Amino acid sequence: MDRIDQALYQRLQPIIDAQVFLKHLGVQIVELQPGRCEISLDYDQRWSQQDGFFHGGIVGTLADNSAGMAGASTMPEGRNCLTAEYKLNFIAPAKGETLIARANVIKAGRTLTVAESNIFIKSGSEERQVATALATLISV
Amino acid sequence: MDRIDQALYQRLQPIIDAQVFLKHLGVQIVELQPGRCEISLDYDQRWSQQDGFFHGGIVGTLADNSAGMAGASTMPEGRNCLTAEYKLNFIAPAKGETLIARANVIKAGRTLTVAESNIFIKSGSEERQVATALATLISV
Amino acid sequence: MDRIDQALYQRLQPIIDAQVFLKHLGVQIVELQPGRCEISLDYDQRWSQQDGFFHGGIVGTLADNSAGMAGASTMPEGRNCLTAEYKLNFIAPAKGETLIARANVIKAGRTLTVAESNIFIKSGSEERQVATALATLISV
Amino acid sequence: MDRIDQALYQRLQPIIDAQVFLKHLGVQIVELQPGRCEISLDYDQRWSQQDGFFHGGIVGTLADNSAGMAGASTMPEGRNCLTAEYKLNFIAPAKGETLIARANVIKAGRTLTVAESNIFIKSGSEERQVATALATLISV
Repeated sequence: MDRIDQALYQRLQPIIDAQVFLKHLGVQIVELQPGRCEISLDYDQRWSQQDGFFHGGIVGTLADNSAGMAGASTMPEGRNCLTAEYKLNFIAPAKGETLIARANVIKAGRTLTVAESNIFIKSGSEERQVATALATLISV
Repeated sequence: MDRIDQALYQRLQPIIDAQVFLKHLGVQIVELQPGRCEISLDYDQRWSQQDGFFHGGIVGTLADNSAGMAGASTMPEGRNCLTAEYKLNFIAPAKGETLIARANVIKAGRTLTVAESNIFIKSGSEERQVATALATLISV
Repeated sequence: MDRIDQALYQRLQPIIDAQVFLKHLGVQIVELQPGRCEISLDYDQRWSQQDGFFHGGIVGTLADNSAGMAGASTMPEGRNCLTAEYKLNFIAPAKGETLIARANVIKAGRTLTVAESNIFIKSGSEERQVATALATLISV
Repeated sequence: MDRIDQALYQRLQPIIDAQVFLKHLGVQIVELQPGRCEISLDYDQRWSQQDGFFHGGIVGTLADNSAGMAGASTMPEGRNCLTAEYKLNFIAPAKGETLIARANVIKAGRTLTVAESNIFIKSGSEERQVATALATLISV
């Protein structure tokens, strides 16, 4: 199955492209379906913390943005959403080559949408969860 | 009053210096006292989102790290703390020249420490709150 | 200073009165001002957990409701607010005679309002913080 | 399959029984397996808010306690866990006959355990999600 819904992609890719910081990092869309979004980021030493793992700020960035895009994917054309708030639990060190955030919408509402994002690290062929987040998005 | 407690600074500065991502961003320590930490980051277009304001991922990074350093400042020498989790509310766009995160410890415990961080944007001589966060830190 | 703004009280008291569970508990309004609300609950063994202290569910109830009322106090007549979400950190056991929740609005918005609530236990003449919460309210 | 692990039940039931507030409400254990717990509460007008639905404080109580018991179920005998913090999103009104909280452990750690709880309302033969929560538990 194609993991990218092309119509959605054409609608949302410009939003990612316009986010200079995400471009600077090199965040990529891996999956995009109504209510679901996966983004990833390859390791670079610039994104690291004191032990050489992905920095928590990068983990938070991917959690927040994947949830936001999952939310945006459920909105009618011309609408977008902003993150009103999120909560993130770190559960393991993000040591590996690729950081992956998989978000899905739990409840899509007219004004508020709730989404979760689970963040994983890929190291060789292994994947391990490093964080989990719960976000509230507001339609604008 | 000197806003930097020099003994604390010498203990914590290496931790910041070792966080390559924070160095890459250019995060600076403005205040450091037992239970209190202020850090700041000057605007650069690379840290921006679609409207040219500071990206939410940068706001989250400063919230998380300021809370962590406020927590670390209350720990005995040789101990550090990690962020177990945090929750962040965005309350206004981060449009301005300098992003400032002011964190203080609410409860310092043996194992868990709770800290809050309030994030402000400075634009000219004005300051405006852009986010508020509540974090749980674990002593390691 | 009178801690109760009578006009606000007359507008919000019916909302509390209509919440049967709060009446069942015996929650009382101690302070009510625009953007600020304090409620309290006297100890009863029915509200206790295994050690005889106030149960966490009661602490959460007061945190949520005090934040909601602080939010409601900033809204124009005819509008009310619902809790969209909250996050609560427990920081000490709620051992004492009276549980007190003090909430204040951090940011009042047209659609979303952010409020914090700090929860204290009064034991004799001493007061101790037992929890802190951050809530997002939606205007309805 | 028996939904109750009897060995676990005998270990955890006393903890529930000792929580007077949960007994007062009438909370029941529906499922208990390592890393998983479901509890429920039948509607009573005493637990209602202004529209006659389950009060948010009751929803929070079940979210917190189900997560705590899921966490406790993964701990070695003689250990228990306390809720350090939780975050709860309300997503629909809790209008119905039975409130059900289903919690599962996301990450069981030596000191900290992360669990989620999804809360549903049963109305006739239909079930609908009313809230979702993410909790951090500390082993004691």
